[in-house]
Amino acid sequence: MENFKLTILGCGSAKPTLKHFPSSQVLNVRDKLFMIDCGEGAQLQYCRNRLPFNRLNHIFISHLHGDHWFGLPGLISTFNLLGRTAELHVHSPHGLEQMMKPIMDYCNNDMTYQVYFHEFDTHESTMIFEDRTLTVTTIPLTHRLPTCGFLFKEKEGLRHIIREMIDFYHIPLAYINNIKAGADFVLPNGEVIANERLTTPPSPTHRYAYCSDTIYKPEIVELIRGVDLLYHEATYAADDEVKAQKHFHSTTLQAAQIAKDAQVKQLVIGHFSARYTDEDKLLNEAKSVFSNTLLADENCLFKA
Amino acid sequence: MENFKLTILGCGSAKPTLKHFPSSQVLNVRDKLFMIDCGEGAQLQYCRNRLPFNRLNHIFISHLHGDHWFGLPGLISTFNLLGRTAELHVHSPHGLEQMMKPIMDYCNNDMTYQVYFHEFDTHESTMIFEDRTLTVTTIPLTHRLPTCGFLFKEKEGLRHIIREMIDFYHIPLAYINNIKAGADFVLPNGEVIANERLTTPPSPTHRYAYCSDTIYKPEIVELIRGVDLLYHEATYAADDEVKAQKHFHSTTLQAAQIAKDAQVKQLVIGHFSARYTDEDKLLNEAKSVFSNTLLADENCLFKA
Repeated sequence: MENFKLTILGCGSAKPTLKHFPSSQVLNVRDKLFMIDCGEGAQLQYCRNRLPFNRLNHIFISHLHGDHWFGLPGLISTFNLLGRTAELHVHSPHGLEQMMKPIMDYCNNDMTYQVYFHEFDTHESTMIFEDRTLTVTTIPLTHRLPTCGFLFKEKEGLRHIIREMIDFYHIPLAYINNIKAGADFVLPNGEVIANERLTTPPSPTHRYAYCSDTIYKPEIVELIRGVDLLYHEATYAADDEVKAQKHFHSTTLQAAQIAKDAQVKQLVIGHFSARYTDEDKLLNEAKSVFSNTLLADENCLFKA
Repeated sequence: MENFKLTILGCGSAKPTLKHFPSSQVLNVRDKLFMIDCGEGAQLQYCRNRLPFNRLNHIFISHLHGDHWFGLPGLISTFNLLGRTAELHVHSPHGLEQMMKPIMDYCNNDMTYQVYFHEFDTHESTMIFEDRTLTVTTIPLTHRLPTCGFLFKEKEGLRHIIREMIDFYHIPLAYINNIKAGADFVLPNGEVIANERLTTPPSPTHRYAYCSDTIYKPEIVELIRGVDLLYHEATYAADDEVKAQKHFHSTTLQAAQIAKDAQVKQLVIGHFSARYTDEDKLLNEAKSVFSNTLLADENCLFKA
């Protein structure tokens, strides 16, 4: 089973280049796929990475600049052509449903499945999604439009059975799920076998934080402290800090400073401005502050 | 000067493939660029072909299936990021402006230029654009939505000056434009020099017809008779005629039959269904009816 694998579909910024697609990525959590942002061409990139469409039920849009959602009409359309029946849920700041409405209305008679829009307030951190395996919480960012990043936090799984002990005590299959969930076992003679003798602790859980687009915002540090993987925008090189500030973006050094202050395990920088041809320079700048930094690139896989 | 050169940006059909982009192409008429359809990724393909953004002022959308216009929001946005000031005109069947309106409204405060939507009726052939160099006339097609193809017809240019004769008669520069336009020249002694002695006829004019998407529709033959270049959809192979009919598309043989009946000079087939991996088979089928047939492909140039 795949878990907490991040596939970058696009890590460019708004101006199109031949090097990068606009923002989009897919996080695999125990073989469920979650799309984060959906720039133009996301469906193409999704296919290129041979990701299965039927495992994608939730899309999280950080903000409503076109380079973060203009791939959505095409993706929704393609699902329809493929005869999808499962519901699709799109989470975003306020306004997306209204922009999508006339397109959805136009297609409505032909739709084979239902799309639900869930819009969140961007001012405070809120849990916007929860299922058995994870929660998704917003990370309020500061950009030219209302914007949030997303924290994907895996829930603790079940404990692992020690096969030999189960055999030793002849524990019937029907009890296994309870034991995985932490129950002790009572032998026919009344003796209690403590769960700790029958199981080992659950696998460690993972956390992934996506922070794009944003001005340098130290307030997010507490929300993302210690995450396994942080994707933080680094639209500008260190030299261009004034431009970054003006356009509500971050520099390489600022992204790395956030990673350092939050003591994350690994940083991936992306959302590169079209002006830079030498991205190794961007990487080296970030590494000067936070050594465990990697460059995002299309079709790259990162493990949280 | 480039003239009547057609660049294919995308010639796939609605289901995304890794081989083709959805429909979009650009016709160069005397260095003015006209975009025909604007599927997702059109702006990327436009850049890849190094076409200049500042020569594109008119976009013609054949119908409102997403694979023919979902690239438009991104393109309009990019023009804005680049600080465009020239008006952009988008011609389409009814309904596009309404679908684009909330997106345009959302961006409106930031727009550096004006976008005008011009919507046409798809029931009868109408001239929807005219300037000094060409006219664009709709070609009513039959598809699942109101759809038109487009006939681009170059206007006759000016006559060509015979330099030696101008020198011989010492004709002043100020008269040249009139002579190019067909005027005779009167010598100081009253002698009239007929225009035919001073000029050669204008260059031959060109015509390009775009017909996608459509069921086999012989009624269009008269509208496109003798064009230099015809792009006709051939979504399906000959074997799949029943499917073609059902989905209001054409087969290779039907596209070629239209080309043959209309006595066009050259046929380009495109809008290939994702089901065919061997497009040479499609080409050979079409060639069996109309030999001067070519396969469309991304980033290919065709000369009308």
